[in-house]
Amino acid sequence: MTEIAPRQVSEDLVLANHILSNEGVLDAFGHVSVRHPSTTDRFLISHARAPELVEADDLQVLDLRGARVAGGERRSYEEVAIHAAVYRHRSDVNAVVHSHAPSVIPFGVTGVPLRPIYHMGSVIGHEIPVWDIAVRFGDTDLLVRDENQGDDLAAALGARAVVLMRGHGCVVTGADLRAAVFAAVYLERDATLLMAARGLGNVRELSIGETARAAAMLRGHAGERAWEYWLRRLPQRDALGGGAGRVSKKELTGAED
Amino acid sequence: MTEIAPRQVSEDLVLANHILSNEGVLDAFGHVSVRHPSTTDRFLISHARAPELVEADDLQVLDLRGARVAGGERRSYEEVAIHAAVYRHRSDVNAVVHSHAPSVIPFGVTGVPLRPIYHMGSVIGHEIPVWDIAVRFGDTDLLVRDENQGDDLAAALGARAVVLMRGHGCVVTGADLRAAVFAAVYLERDATLLMAARGLGNVRELSIGETARAAAMLRGHAGERAWEYWLRRLPQRDALGGGAGRVSKKELTGAED
Amino acid sequence: MTEIAPRQVSEDLVLANHILSNEGVLDAFGHVSVRHPSTTDRFLISHARAPELVEADDLQVLDLRGARVAGGERRSYEEVAIHAAVYRHRSDVNAVVHSHAPSVIPFGVTGVPLRPIYHMGSVIGHEIPVWDIAVRFGDTDLLVRDENQGDDLAAALGARAVVLMRGHGCVVTGADLRAAVFAAVYLERDATLLMAARGLGNVRELSIGETARAAAMLRGHAGERAWEYWLRRLPQRDALGGGAGRVSKKELTGAED
Amino acid sequence: MTEIAPRQVSEDLVLANHILSNEGVLDAFGHVSVRHPSTTDRFLISHARAPELVEADDLQVLDLRGARVAGGERRSYEEVAIHAAVYRHRSDVNAVVHSHAPSVIPFGVTGVPLRPIYHMGSVIGHEIPVWDIAVRFGDTDLLVRDENQGDDLAAALGARAVVLMRGHGCVVTGADLRAAVFAAVYLERDATLLMAARGLGNVRELSIGETARAAAMLRGHAGERAWEYWLRRLPQRDALGGGAGRVSKKELTGAED
Repeated sequence: MTEIAPRQVSEDLVLANHILSNEGVLDAFGHVSVRHPSTTDRFLISHARAPELVEADDLQVLDLRGARVAGGERRSYEEVAIHAAVYRHRSDVNAVVHSHAPSVIPFGVTGVPLRPIYHMGSVIGHEIPVWDIAVRFGDTDLLVRDENQGDDLAAALGARAVVLMRGHGCVVTGADLRAAVFAAVYLERDATLLMAARGLGNVRELSIGETARAAAMLRGHAGERAWEYWLRRLPQRDALGGGAGRVSKKELTGAED
Repeated sequence: MTEIAPRQVSEDLVLANHILSNEGVLDAFGHVSVRHPSTTDRFLISHARAPELVEADDLQVLDLRGARVAGGERRSYEEVAIHAAVYRHRSDVNAVVHSHAPSVIPFGVTGVPLRPIYHMGSVIGHEIPVWDIAVRFGDTDLLVRDENQGDDLAAALGARAVVLMRGHGCVVTGADLRAAVFAAVYLERDATLLMAARGLGNVRELSIGETARAAAMLRGHAGERAWEYWLRRLPQRDALGGGAGRVSKKELTGAED
Repeated sequence: MTEIAPRQVSEDLVLANHILSNEGVLDAFGHVSVRHPSTTDRFLISHARAPELVEADDLQVLDLRGARVAGGERRSYEEVAIHAAVYRHRSDVNAVVHSHAPSVIPFGVTGVPLRPIYHMGSVIGHEIPVWDIAVRFGDTDLLVRDENQGDDLAAALGARAVVLMRGHGCVVTGADLRAAVFAAVYLERDATLLMAARGLGNVRELSIGETARAAAMLRGHAGERAWEYWLRRLPQRDALGGGAGRVSKKELTGAED
Repeated sequence: MTEIAPRQVSEDLVLANHILSNEGVLDAFGHVSVRHPSTTDRFLISHARAPELVEADDLQVLDLRGARVAGGERRSYEEVAIHAAVYRHRSDVNAVVHSHAPSVIPFGVTGVPLRPIYHMGSVIGHEIPVWDIAVRFGDTDLLVRDENQGDDLAAALGARAVVLMRGHGCVVTGADLRAAVFAAVYLERDATLLMAARGLGNVRELSIGETARAAAMLRGHAGERAWEYWLRRLPQRDALGGGAGRVSKKELTGAED
């Protein structure tokens, strides 16, 4: 096991990768990171590989400029600037998910506001801005590749939980890793439900007060219950091998509640 | 095996938890309960954990105020008031499902009437009210947390089979556990089909007479056939262990018809 | 193995049950039958159980009035009158599927014509009538329970391949079992695609000539290729036991193409 | 192992068959081919069987008229003329996928332009023509059966990456096999997202410049990352046997990055 961070932090980040893949938030692309618990101007993230395949050995430590400082020289994701920028600008954020979750793309390209319509969606916040890289940077490959672009994205995010990226995906933040995973999953669910509801008729969204109260409630025990459930749903891949770095699921899902 | 209720009752409640998860009605959240067969002012429900993971050891007995009377002190779901209220107000109801089934949320937030459009959907009844917690309780976290809120919800339900909860989910009742599971599953299916049908054109719903006749028919052998099918579809989780409390599927799915 | 029919006929009917379940055409309900190869005023169908669970031991022989003549006294599906009526009226039909396939329900309740929009859908024919049991029989439980209702349904079907049943499902016929399975699967696919296409804009359907030519083409090798594929996709259920009547998949999928 | 081509080429083509099936692009029908690496007026493709079941032994070598020149006499797909035509007309293309991917059919029958709406979709190119076989060939079974039809289709494709076929499916090309697989998968994803987005409101598509830049970016490391992910998602079918020709997944998925 690598010693780039406390073992529990690495293991949770590996599981976050697998959960987000298994729940349909990430596919071969997208990534999730967590701020280093003691060295808070560092964060952990896998080198460039599909989240579904990430193991503890794949994790690296990067600084807030996106430079590798531990975990070897394997190539980074091309968009570590997203994570670095959010950690620079938001001291309250300790975990970041960048995804191309299918249900959020339509909101990013139409400008239709994505809002919580049920209590589970409240974790995404009442207001979700859409950031368009073309406004300041013109025609690009849509990737956030440097500090300027990262700063611009972080400015659009502001103090909110989520920002959509036009023609690309979204960024979801959390006070800790499980909160970010929770918000990323329920962002996807809420967006799916809102599309269906708009197909039926005029939609009554959660009020600002309801959103705040429900989100506060979900910061309680809900995260643990969901995490335990998502772990149970992970496919078992022992037959494909997995190597010494494989975190044992059995080991991690012992005591509950 | 716990002795808080006859073994068959506990086993069926465990399986109801697993079936409702596997059929897409429950995820990490939502819950299912059954009235105690002999002490009818009590009901059985799991302590607060994802239904997919519930085993016989997790079950507790609560009274109709939602207080734990057997099965240990582990924390209850925050909304046991839903179940308690329905059992208080409806002596004909012996099982209750509370879910956030994806297809019902859009009806709750648009006010578009959710009705049966095919015979399998008839079990939900001709009329499904929408209860909005905000009408009497203003901005909340949407959860039903006390007897007042439970009474208000039960009043909206009235003598019907199902009530939707705006921005939250639904409550489905049954004369017995399998009937409640059956109605919860086909509520989800009917809602999905109605959304699709409305996208095509004007929808001919079942008439009141058809709804009553088809529902009566489905109270016959249909429940057993579906239950046997849903059991077969459950994933096998032996490789993940499961503990002594695990109900053996092989044991429960002997010969039927 | 039962001797109510040649072994290959029984085995294929078992597999047809499993394939139609696995491909999302049948769930706990619906059924598939095949005309007896030598005694053509008889047909084979399971007793009343979910198609996913049907094994060779479950098959019975019925006459064209729906009465059991071999395979024991276990209760029949309540709608064997559908199968009996089609075999009575259509000597060219040797297999019948009755399903509640989700994508066909919306067409039955809106009257929007369900037509083939791509070559694979051509097997359903250019014209698909909708039969409404209420026209002649008023408020019912929607089930086809007797010869009168069966005759009325068969009259609506006429010489066509498929008939929809308002508020209920559909009947799909075939010259042989694999053709009926093929048509039932691609009916479901075509209906799904047509709903999506209508959401986009005006739909160009296959012409009458294209439908006839493509359907003739698909009566060639396509059926075998699809059957082999659907067999491969069946879940392996050995771990759940299955009993002596279980048809070995390995045994049946030997030589190909 | 056959020696009709270098082993790695055959193995990749087998895996491409399995990946495209597993990712929902191909079902029992559709096919994928690759130009022979040394004899460039030849291409490799399976004989006529479902892609999910293709193994190395099933591969044959065809010339650019669609005639078999190696790999035995088993019957070819009826539409090898598609592949032959594209290889004749496009020396820059070294792999071809023909699919009936569900999400592309609606665009082919409505004429609604299918365009990239997010960076992952850029690989399909800014403009996707729709070819209608009826324009020159009248009522057919929709299959591309000869050189004339193949030439007509290739002319519609022109220098682009993708062409839709009205009432039938699409053709996707690539500079190499993995690029064609990548484009076929993300064509399906982009089409799905565009349908959802159009249901919400007016859609901002990628600009021409964005499409070109993002596609160039995706020609980098993205293909390897996705390929590794798709391999991991393949079902394990060892329990069904598979025979000597089965390419071992374990063997092929060593270390990557």
